[in-house]
Amino acid sequence: MRKTYFTPGPAELYPSVEKHYQDAFNLQLGSISHRSAQFRKIYQHTAEQLRTLLNIPESHGIFFTGSATEIWERVIQNTVEHESFHLVNGSFSKKFYDFSNELHKFAHKMEKPFGEGFDYAEITVPEYSELICTTANETASGVQMRPAEIHKLKRSNKDKFVVVDMVSSAPYPDFDFNTIDSALFSVQKSFGMPAGLGVWIANPKMLEKSLRMKTHEATIGTYHSLPTLWKNFEKYETPETPNVLAIYVLGKVAEDMNKTGIETIRKETEKKAKLLYDFAEKSSLVDIFVKNPDHRSQTVVVLNTHKPASEIIETVKNASDLVIGSGYGDFKASQIRIANFPAVNIEQVEALIAEMKKI
Amino acid sequence: MRKTYFTPGPAELYPSVEKHYQDAFNLQLGSISHRSAQFRKIYQHTAEQLRTLLNIPESHGIFFTGSATEIWERVIQNTVEHESFHLVNGSFSKKFYDFSNELHKFAHKMEKPFGEGFDYAEITVPEYSELICTTANETASGVQMRPAEIHKLKRSNKDKFVVVDMVSSAPYPDFDFNTIDSALFSVQKSFGMPAGLGVWIANPKMLEKSLRMKTHEATIGTYHSLPTLWKNFEKYETPETPNVLAIYVLGKVAEDMNKTGIETIRKETEKKAKLLYDFAEKSSLVDIFVKNPDHRSQTVVVLNTHKPASEIIETVKNASDLVIGSGYGDFKASQIRIANFPAVNIEQVEALIAEMKKI
Repeated sequence: MRKTYFTPGPAELYPSVEKHYQDAFNLQLGSISHRSAQFRKIYQHTAEQLRTLLNIPESHGIFFTGSATEIWERVIQNTVEHESFHLVNGSFSKKFYDFSNELHKFAHKMEKPFGEGFDYAEITVPEYSELICTTANETASGVQMRPAEIHKLKRSNKDKFVVVDMVSSAPYPDFDFNTIDSALFSVQKSFGMPAGLGVWIANPKMLEKSLRMKTHEATIGTYHSLPTLWKNFEKYETPETPNVLAIYVLGKVAEDMNKTGIETIRKETEKKAKLLYDFAEKSSLVDIFVKNPDHRSQTVVVLNTHKPASEIIETVKNASDLVIGSGYGDFKASQIRIANFPAVNIEQVEALIAEMKKI
Repeated sequence: MRKTYFTPGPAELYPSVEKHYQDAFNLQLGSISHRSAQFRKIYQHTAEQLRTLLNIPESHGIFFTGSATEIWERVIQNTVEHESFHLVNGSFSKKFYDFSNELHKFAHKMEKPFGEGFDYAEITVPEYSELICTTANETASGVQMRPAEIHKLKRSNKDKFVVVDMVSSAPYPDFDFNTIDSALFSVQKSFGMPAGLGVWIANPKMLEKSLRMKTHEATIGTYHSLPTLWKNFEKYETPETPNVLAIYVLGKVAEDMNKTGIETIRKETEKKAKLLYDFAEKSSLVDIFVKNPDHRSQTVVVLNTHKPASEIIETVKNASDLVIGSGYGDFKASQIRIANFPAVNIEQVEALIAEMKKI
C-alpha cells in the first residue's frame, strides 16, 4: 500500500516528480554531457523558474551543490574572513554555527531554548561579524523566523551579509532578495523531490567579498568556491558533473508551482497549517510545542504528545498508511513532527487529522 | 529514436539502471528518512556489493559524496598537512594538482605531455610529500596507468599515502586495496548511472592522519571531513541527507555486475577495447592517439581523426543514433573519444565500428 509521508524531510514527493523523472529517462538525460547546449538549457530553465517562484533578481547567482549542508560550509568559507554570527535555536542552526568553528572562524551566537524563536528587536549583532546566519524554519523544533524580522535585521546591519537557511521552508516564506544577501535550501523538503541537490542563491556583493578574500590569501575552497561556481553559472554550467536529473526535475517542479502560483501555494500552506494547529489546540492527544504564535512554523508543525509519540505514529501508520515524523533528538519520545509541504493537499491533511482524532 | 552513448561520461546507462530507479520510486525511497533502518540497510547493501566487486577489505571505509571532484578536495584537505605529489598527464590529473594549490598546500608534480603515461621506474617522489595522487585512467587523453605500476609506487613509498583516481575506469582495473590507501570514482562513467554521486574508499591509516591533523589545528573541513564521514559510516549513515536513490541504484548495479562476475566484465572490456584499437590501426579514417600500447586505456579509446572530428561524430549519429565523444579541450576538432564501459556490449561496439568503416 502506498504511504503518504508527512515526515519533515525526506518527505512526500510532489505529485509530478515521478513523471518528470520518467521523462528525464525517456529523454536520456542521464547520458548527456554537462558541457552540452542541452544541459545549459536545462540549467537556464531551472534558474528562470526559481527566479519567478522566489522573485530572485537577475543580478543574483543560482548554484547547485550536493546538499544544503554543503552550502553551510561554502557560505562561511567564501564570505567569512574572521567572524560570523549565528541565531541558534535548534539542531540545524547549531550545526551551522559548529561549521564556522570547524573552519577556524570566530563564531558568535545568540542562543534560545528549543522551541523558542527570534524577533529583530532583541538581537544584538557583534560588531565585527561579517555574516549573520539566520534560519527561516528550524526543522527540528518547528520554529520560524518571519521574513519581516530578517529584513529588519539586514536593514540595520547593512555592512554585514545576511544569509537565510530556507531548508524546509522554501518556497513558502516571501523574502526580499534585494534585502537579504543569500539563501540556501535542499530539494527533499518543500520541493518534494528525492534528496541529492542543494540550491544556493547569492548576490554579487558576496562574490566580490570572496574574490577579495582570495587575494588576501584566504582558503575559499576549490571547485565550489563562489568565484568558480559563478564563472560556470554565467554560461549555465557547473564546475563538476552535477546531478543533471535533479536539476532538470527541480526546474519542472518549480514550473508546476509557478502554474499553480506562489500566492496560492502560500495561502494553501497557511490554511493547512491552521487546520493542524486548530486541531492540536482542541485535542487532548497533543498540544502545540511552540508557544508564541508568531514563531510557529507554517511548514513543520511540532506537537507535544500526551501518549508516547511512537504509539501515535504507529497507530496512524497502521490505520491509514499516513507517516508522520517523530520528535527530533531528545524529543523523539514526546513529540511528533508533521510536515506541511506543498506535496500534501488539504484533503490529505484532513485525513490525517481525522485519523488522529480517532485515537 | 533512442541513442546509444559512447561518450566518456556521462555515458550510456547500464541496462538495468532505469528499472532500478523505477523500483526505487515504487518503494518510495525518495521519501524515507536517512536516519531509518531502511536507509542503513541500503547503504550496507551497496557497501557490501562494492566490497565484493572491487575486493575492498572489511577494514576500509566506503563513503558517498556529491561527485568525484569533491573527493579530490576532501582527500587533500584530510591527509595533506603540507605537501602533495601529482602525476599529471591530462586535464583531470592537472585539476587534482590545482586543488592542492588552491587549498594552500605545497603541490609537486611530474608532468607528461598529453597522450603519454607513467611507469613506476621513471618516477621520483619528492621526499616530503605526504600524498601521491595517481590517475588510473585519464578521461581526457585516454591514457591509463596500470595497477602493477601504482602498486610498485606504493611499495617503495610506504610512508606516503597513494590515492588512485578511478573515475572512468572503476571497476575495470584490478587494484590491491591492501596496497593502495585510497580510491575514488563517480557513478556516471563505468557504472552507467546518472551523475550526482561520488564514491570514496579509504583505509584506517588515512583516518588516523586526518584525526592527527585535526589535533594539529589543521582545517579538515566539516560534514565531509574523514572523521565525520567515518563516524557516520560505522552505522551506515551519512552526515547530510544524501542522494538516497543513487546509493540504492549503485548497490543494485554493483549486484548485477557481481552476478555477471568481475572477471567476465574485465575480459569483455579488453575484448571490446581490442576491437576498437584493431579497427583504428587498420583504418585510414583514424589512428590511435596513445603510442605506447601499455598506456592505452581499456575504457576510454582516444583516436586522432583524419577528417574533422565533428564530421565523423555527426555522420555516425545521423546514420545510426550512436553518439561518440569529441576530443577534450584543444583536441576537440582533431580527436574522438569512445567510451568502452560495461553498459555497451560487443554487438554495440561492432555496430559502431561498422558505421565508422562506412565513412
